[in-house]
Formats: sequence, C-alpha cells, structure tokens
Amino acid sequence: MRMVDIIEKKRNGEELTNEEIRFFVNGYTKGDIPDYQVSALMMAIYFKDMTERERADLTMAMVESGDKIDLSQIEGVKVDKHSTGGVGDTTTLSLAAMVAACGVPVAKMSGRGLGHTGGTIDKLEAIEGFHVELSNDQFVKQVNDIKMAVIGQSGNLTPADKKLYALRDVTGTVPSIPLIASSIMSKKIAAGADAIVLDVKTGDGAFMKTIEESEALAHAMVKIGNNVGRKTMAIISDMSQPLGYAIGNALEVKEAIDTLKGEGPEDLQELCYTLGSQMVVVGGKAVTIEEARTMLEGVVQSGEALEIFKKFIAAQGGDPSVVDDPSLLPQAKYKIDVAAKETGYISKMEADDIGIAAMLLGAGRATKESTIDLSVGLVLQKKVGDAVAIGDTLVTIHTNDLDIEKVIQKLYAHIIISADKVEAPELIKKVITE
Amino acid sequence: MRMVDIIEKKRNGEELTNEEIRFFVNGYTKGDIPDYQVSALMMAIYFKDMTERERADLTMAMVESGDKIDLSQIEGVKVDKHSTGGVGDTTTLSLAAMVAACGVPVAKMSGRGLGHTGGTIDKLEAIEGFHVELSNDQFVKQVNDIKMAVIGQSGNLTPADKKLYALRDVTGTVPSIPLIASSIMSKKIAAGADAIVLDVKTGDGAFMKTIEESEALAHAMVKIGNNVGRKTMAIISDMSQPLGYAIGNALEVKEAIDTLKGEGPEDLQELCYTLGSQMVVVGGKAVTIEEARTMLEGVVQSGEALEIFKKFIAAQGGDPSVVDDPSLLPQAKYKIDVAAKETGYISKMEADDIGIAAMLLGAGRATKESTIDLSVGLVLQKKVGDAVAIGDTLVTIHTNDLDIEKVIQKLYAHIIISADKVEAPELIKKVITE
Repeated sequence: MRMVDIIEKKRNGEELTNEEIRFFVNGYTKGDIPDYQVSALMMAIYFKDMTERERADLTMAMVESGDKIDLSQIEGVKVDKHSTGGVGDTTTLSLAAMVAACGVPVAKMSGRGLGHTGGTIDKLEAIEGFHVELSNDQFVKQVNDIKMAVIGQSGNLTPADKKLYALRDVTGTVPSIPLIASSIMSKKIAAGADAIVLDVKTGDGAFMKTIEESEALAHAMVKIGNNVGRKTMAIISDMSQPLGYAIGNALEVKEAIDTLKGEGPEDLQELCYTLGSQMVVVGGKAVTIEEARTMLEGVVQSGEALEIFKKFIAAQGGDPSVVDDPSLLPQAKYKIDVAAKETGYISKMEADDIGIAAMLLGAGRATKESTIDLSVGLVLQKKVGDAVAIGDTLVTIHTNDLDIEKVIQKLYAHIIISADKVEAPELIKKVITE
Repeated sequence: MRMVDIIEKKRNGEELTNEEIRFFVNGYTKGDIPDYQVSALMMAIYFKDMTERERADLTMAMVESGDKIDLSQIEGVKVDKHSTGGVGDTTTLSLAAMVAACGVPVAKMSGRGLGHTGGTIDKLEAIEGFHVELSNDQFVKQVNDIKMAVIGQSGNLTPADKKLYALRDVTGTVPSIPLIASSIMSKKIAAGADAIVLDVKTGDGAFMKTIEESEALAHAMVKIGNNVGRKTMAIISDMSQPLGYAIGNALEVKEAIDTLKGEGPEDLQELCYTLGSQMVVVGGKAVTIEEARTMLEGVVQSGEALEIFKKFIAAQGGDPSVVDDPSLLPQAKYKIDVAAKETGYISKMEADDIGIAAMLLGAGRATKESTIDLSVGLVLQKKVGDAVAIGDTLVTIHTNDLDIEKVIQKLYAHIIISADKVEAPELIKKVITE
C-alpha cells in the first residue's frame, strides 16, 4: 500500500477502505508517513468529505493508536459529556453531580484550558485542597462508592489525533466535519465512555458559527457514536452570548453550586436539565427524556445532587464547606461595575470578545505557559433581551489589578444596546437523539 | 504574512496576491516554509485552481527563484519549443535545423530522458564525438555563426519548480493545470526563451489523455506566456500511437535526418512543418503561418536545413558524415521482425505500452541510475489505419539480447488488429495561436 495512492483516491472522491485508513493513521503515528503526505490528504478530505463508514473507521483507528482507559470495573453505563466549547460554560460540574445523583456513574477525565477561562481541572483547583491525581484503583473505587470522580488526563490517549490536530492547525484543514467529529469522538471513546452526550455550541462564541454547520457536526458525531456501538445523543445550544453569568474559574464554581441548588442562571439551569436528561437516558436510568428530567429536578430539589457534589469534593481532598459558604473560594481584590451609557435593550453580548476580556484579566491562558488567576473574571448583570437604563450595571469585573482600561473598552465595544426591544435568543436550538 | 493564512485563502477559493505567491515560493525555496504547508496549498490549488494573473505570477516567481540564462548576445528572437512528451518524439532535432535554416536562432538547452527513450542529449550522443558541454561564450558564438546549438542543462534553473515538482509527485497534486502550466513555462523562460511554441500531446501515450484536458493545458500555457511578455503559440497533437516509426535513440536520429531530407514518416514530417511554422512566425521571420510553411518546405527541398544540421554536428565535435551514411550510427546486433497473426486493419498501437517495450530493450531509463543502450529500439512497419495481412511485419525489434519474449508479448498485446477498416487518427487536433 502506498500513501500517494490513498491521497489520489480521496482526491478523486472515492471511499477509502478501513485498511487504507488504518494504514495512514498507524503509519503517521509511528512516523513512517511524513507530514507532507498527511496534510495533502487532510486537504483532500476537506474538499471531498468522508462517508459514515470512513468516519467511524477513522475514529476507531485513532482510538486504537494509543492507550485506552479501562472502566470495566465500574458498575453501570459510563456516560461522558462533551461540549464543543464556549464562554462561561460551567455545565460540567453541576451536570456531573446531578446525573450521578440519578445513579449514572460519572468517571470523568478532564483537561486544563487554553483560552478564555481554565478547563474543568483548573476550576476544581479553586477549591482548597482539591487534587486531581488518583490512581486507577482509587478512581474506580470512588466512582463505585459515590458515583462521581474527576481526574486529570493521563496516559497516551489518541496520539494519532494529537499529531493530526497539530498538523491540521497549521495547514488550513481544521474546519472539516469528518475530521472534527472523529477527533472528538476518538478522545471520548479512548477515555472509556460507553455512551456519549454532546453539547454542540452555535453562534459567534462557538467554533461553529451557523446552525447548519453545528447541526452537521452534531449529526456526524451522533452517527459515529452509534456506528461504533456507543449510544450517542446531542443538542445544539446557543453561544451567541456567554452561558450563565460568570466567566472565570472560582466565579464559575460558585455558579455551578448555585445551579445544583436550583438557583443557577436560567439558561445554565435549563442546559443542565436538557443535557442531563439525555445522559440519564443513555445511561439506562430512564426510558424517556421527560422521565429523566423529572428525576433530575427531583435530585436538585431534594438536595441529593448537592450532597454528591460535597462527597466528591471531600473524596478528592477538597474542603466541602465551600458549598455552603462560597466566599471560601478565591476572591479578587476589586469588584468594579461597568455601567450602561445608554437606555434600551441589550441586543448583543458577543461571547468571543467578552471571553477575551476575561482572559485579559488573567482568567484564561493565552499560551500553554500562561498561569491562571483563579479569582478573577466577569459577572454579567444583564443578558441579551434585558431592558437597561443609563447607569445600570452591565458587568461586574473581578480583578486584582486596576489597569483594566482595555478590558472596559472591550466590554463596551461588544455589549450592544439598541433602542428597540430585542428577544432573548433561544437556548436549545435542536435536540438530536439519533 | 503567515503561510497558514495563504493556504486558507486559497482553500476558500480566493485569489492570492503576487506578494503572497512570492512569499510561499521564496520561503519554500529557502526552506523557511515546510513541505507539509506547501503540499496542503498544492492540494487546495488542485481543487480551487488559479486565475490567469496568479498563474503568471507563480511562473515568474519560479523563474526568479534561481539562475536565468542570458541569451541577449544572440541576435534575433530566441524561440524555444516544448513538447509535453510522448513516444518516438524525434521532432526537436529536425525542427531545430529547419527553423535555423529559416533564420530563427535555436539556442537550446536539453535534458537527459527518464522513460521510454533518452532525451535529446542522449540521442545526440549516438553521433560519435558529439559533446554537449559548451561554455557560455562558445554557445553564444555558435548560435550567432550557424544559428543552432544544443547544450546540456547547467546552472541552478528554477529550484522552486524542482522542489515543488518533487513534492507534488508524492502528494497527489501533479494533475493540476495551473501547476503543470507554470512549471513548464518557468523552465522555458529561465532558459532564456523570448518566444515559445508548445506541442501538447493528447491520447493514451500522453500525460493528458483527453482532448479537453490537453486544450485546457495548452490555453493555460499560451496565456501565461503572453501575459509575461513571451509570444507563445501551441498545437495539440495526437499521441494515441507513437509518432513516426522509430522508438530508440540512434534509430530516432536516423529518422530525424530522413525528415530533414523531406523523407521522414508522414506524421513526423507534418508535425515539424506545423510546429516549425509557428516558430518561424513567433521568431519574426514570417508574418503568416502559410508563409512560414512555404519557407520551411523550401529549406528542406533545397538541402539548407540538412546543411545546418551537418554544421551543427561538426561544431559540437560530432562526425557529420552520419548524415549521409546513417549506418555509422550505433547498430544493434539483431533485427527481429514481429509478424501479424491476423489479417485486417491496425486499430490501435498503444503508445505508452509500446514505449515501455522499447524501454525494456534498454532504449530508455527506468530509473535515474539506468544506462541507455543507444543502438536498440523498435521500428514500426505499420501504423493505425494501415491494412495488414497475416505474416506481415508489424514492428522490427533492434536488440543486442535475444531474451525478448516479454517485449514481443507486450507488442502483441498492445497492437490491435480489427476486421473492419479503421481511419488513421488526425495528427494535428488543434492550433492555438492566442
């Protein structure tokens, strides 16, 4: 088999066999096939796409390129959630505790973040004493005992995907549905997921800017999952403005706790119930989405979800009293309100740029080497559709540094007030169950 | 400027600026831009094409990537000819002497061949004593004195093209009209051509298999030439069967001499007049194609073309008596006739496979390291459309080795005889003058 023949076959729009896909994935991982041939193939795939069968084969070839996490000692269906990423997305923590309280085991491997705010691991470290290093046995035991554990990434998972992604990033081949979908799904499967729920974001602050692109990606991932024997569902949710109110690490942990109490921002609370319902269904703990939702609302009202979250914090060395007293989380020195200069309605809060404003404060990493300030960030006081009068606070800046002129300018530039009434955007755009 | 932005721009179907084209050509030549980015760009160009302006800019960027031959000391318009390559193509030698006899200076740089037979340089070396190493001064003086000189490639011409071609060859990006056209044109321009005549082959034995592809390539090259100030014309000629009768180095030199005497195979003679007419016109020695053709027929009939060829051989150290006695050229030990097994009409002589048969005898190089046997080859005794009876000779094999079973099998497999009358293919498919 020759790589050049595989490139030409795809370039001509033909379907690659499983053997051909494994040949290039394995050859590239081992270093036998050079970057320049793989980048040409990636560009051919960008233009000629892949069939459902090819996408499933590519996903499994990447899964098998490295280590796989073995969760077989955990009882029940291991359900993982993936979000394509946005601004102020605090969902993971609340969601995990809610579905764990419904009996679905959550054995999560999470990463550190590069971008507007930290990743789930960074956020958890805002809780004093919390650690994310567990041995495999400790991890399995904790999930069996309290239904929830979150650890940092370990092992050499999907090295093929890592190498391909780095190459795609510099060769103009990132925005390809089959390549994005197989990349995401391979990571979830290698991390041991039996079933997967996907939150595909859409809008200005999302990787996919249009509903059509987001839907294509969601369908692609759901098809891959179901074709490789992992029950998979997806939703498409709005990311034209940040999710919830908080953007920043400790600030988002506090918001996650509020949400577990049923007191979270309306959009975040709703997103947790919607995604949670799918997780409870694919986890086999309810038959219908409606039944699952009733269960989730129940564990929030009864305090069971909050209870699991406390146990989870304690089990991983953290101080569970932050749940009752969030002022124990890291606090920024200054809280500065940014006031509206006009009266009217919020018509836009551009998620991407507001995320960058948070990063400028130190809430996120611009490069891998940057350090995060867990205490800083933004708390929105208004969202799109809200009425606002001159002088009303739009956003509160939590900062340790008063040199924030650029941040304030950015906020004013990207929070747009119009005279006419504006509708709040619909949060859940689509639910994709097959 | 970042290479990834240039890749994305072309991937999105936008036109690259001259600056962007020069950035990647120069960066790649110097080694500042890696193969994997250039191969992705080449694949994007394969799918998204280039405008006429981009093609001209790419050509000139490649010309300027290395040395350029300075022919300014040669009087007159320096006209070069290029053929996209085929089987048994003996045109260059006869053509050069014919147009030189019409007063058009021929200052030709030629290569060695990789494929069915040798290149022009290999063929000339079939003449005892002939050498292709001339100093620049000798080269210029010879062209001014006798209007014709042929030398081997020297200098570092179009290194960008060499590097790009090697990369395209292993990344499935060879068959792209803008890339092929700019590659060919850059080499001709760097070699000092003021005007260019192109012979684009079409059919089984050609790189371009269909008339549509051949026409697209011819138009692309003519446009580039005229856009960069080099008067350019082209023809599209048949390569469904070999050109002329001879396939092999010494055998083709003999055929070239026959053609200079007006006694060449009908198709080769006609091709020389057609291409020669364009060369005489772009060389400014005639106004119309008809006038040029009359001049060419005149210098053949008068013996002036043959006389120039003799002077040219003598000037480069060869023995001009081969012209009057071609038996002085290297001769193979054995001449073996391959006889027809059926009666009917020749319906196919597949050029590619017949070329491979000649290479198997030793007439061409399978790899750069192979050595050529200048004496061996094939002489066709029939061509497509000819009537044939059982026992008639189809081809005469000139060989130094009697282990030629495979060659004979190949000839029988690719010379097809049908019961029904078949028309000879039209030689000149199109003439493209602008």
